[in-house]
Amino acid sequence: MSVTRRLLLISNSTEHGSGFLEYCSERVKAFFSKYGVSKVLFVPYALFDYDGYTRKARNAFQNMGLELESIHEKEDPVEAVKEAQGIFIGGGNTFRLLKTLYDNNVIEPITERVLQSGLPYMGSSAGTNVATVSICTTNDMPIVFPPSFKALGLVPFNINPHYIDPEPGSIHMGETREERIKQYHEERTTPVLGLKEGSMLEVEGDKAVLRGKTGAKLFIRGQEPQVLEIGTDISHLLKSE
Amino acid sequence: MSVTRRLLLISNSTEHGSGFLEYCSERVKAFFSKYGVSKVLFVPYALFDYDGYTRKARNAFQNMGLELESIHEKEDPVEAVKEAQGIFIGGGNTFRLLKTLYDNNVIEPITERVLQSGLPYMGSSAGTNVATVSICTTNDMPIVFPPSFKALGLVPFNINPHYIDPEPGSIHMGETREERIKQYHEERTTPVLGLKEGSMLEVEGDKAVLRGKTGAKLFIRGQEPQVLEIGTDISHLLKSE
Repeated sequence: MSVTRRLLLISNSTEHGSGFLEYCSERVKAFFSKYGVSKVLFVPYALFDYDGYTRKARNAFQNMGLELESIHEKEDPVEAVKEAQGIFIGGGNTFRLLKTLYDNNVIEPITERVLQSGLPYMGSSAGTNVATVSICTTNDMPIVFPPSFKALGLVPFNINPHYIDPEPGSIHMGETREERIKQYHEERTTPVLGLKEGSMLEVEGDKAVLRGKTGAKLFIRGQEPQVLEIGTDISHLLKSE
Repeated sequence: MSVTRRLLLISNSTEHGSGFLEYCSERVKAFFSKYGVSKVLFVPYALFDYDGYTRKARNAFQNMGLELESIHEKEDPVEAVKEAQGIFIGGGNTFRLLKTLYDNNVIEPITERVLQSGLPYMGSSAGTNVATVSICTTNDMPIVFPPSFKALGLVPFNINPHYIDPEPGSIHMGETREERIKQYHEERTTPVLGLKEGSMLEVEGDKAVLRGKTGAKLFIRGQEPQVLEIGTDISHLLKSE
């Protein structure tokens, strides 16, 4: 079965020294206009201050000529998802985000609309994490306990946003990002895409291409990590479905 | 009720460029000999390779003149805890560690022996995390799903091991350690002790003192973080019980 799927999964919403979504605004604008979306449903659950977060996101979207409504301003979150033209789940704390998606019963409605009726989905950071099979490769602190680590499953692999290689010469003894992903692969076989800041994954149906300006590192259990340049087609990763 | 409690909670087992527990071996030796412990029960659950981890730990303990037995080599983990003279829970992945402690039904037996009969407890990194109220301030990836984030509760606050201040001039946009702890305090009021690498907390009954060579940062909700020097008495943090 071919899957209708329109995703823009961004590593980070903000680049050092510029405004929210500023560095990737052309890509975001192109993504939503391609599918005729003029009004986007925003999910601010990853941050504590929903109102403040919504103001910031609304302002960024207005600058792109797009309208933005927040799910927390709607009476019924499930209905809001059902009626959305497009959805954007913002970054923050991944555990808080996933728990709130469960608490508000929107996990299934979002998955269903994205995979069955092609609702355009954009995520950044934590919003990219929850788009994958699970939040098992988040960098965040587990500040709240979600009922499961299982996430939306819009793609059949994991993403590690804000991926970063070890700093040469560092003497800090905490595990490097690569070591943490290796620990995950001691437990699971799911591939992990380490999306560097400045990169994003664009998915349309069965086609997935790396966009942005920095690239990614792909971790397959039992193999050496592969460095992926911008423009790389990684559609084969969608085939484990 | 006064609590019998003998703890050595270390931020990191290994210092850059030296062997496992080498930098703090004098402190470890002094801790166990003070209480007449000659044989320590090791818990290797935080790493995948129990045998390899045990060899490494046994070697380090032998160099200190201490015997070490691993819980995974014993027939019954609960019995092993009941019979232990002293216990050491090593670092690795905190989620895997906590899940395995639950899976093997040793959470309650360890808590009981430490708090009620004064079993000397040493933890490093993940082993320090699980000694606190919860693993909500771990730095690790959630590679497996434990039944709860609630941990041993040997102290009534949280610890963040490997605590590190932001690097001056960094342009990485992932949250700093301080920002992550602030997010935790949006959800909970529990104090968080950020233990820098090279530091440890020594607790005897109702007295807690910072040891080692680097210090710590204390995060209390709604207050500016406090820098704590080595030797600081933080016994007041034990009083929230």
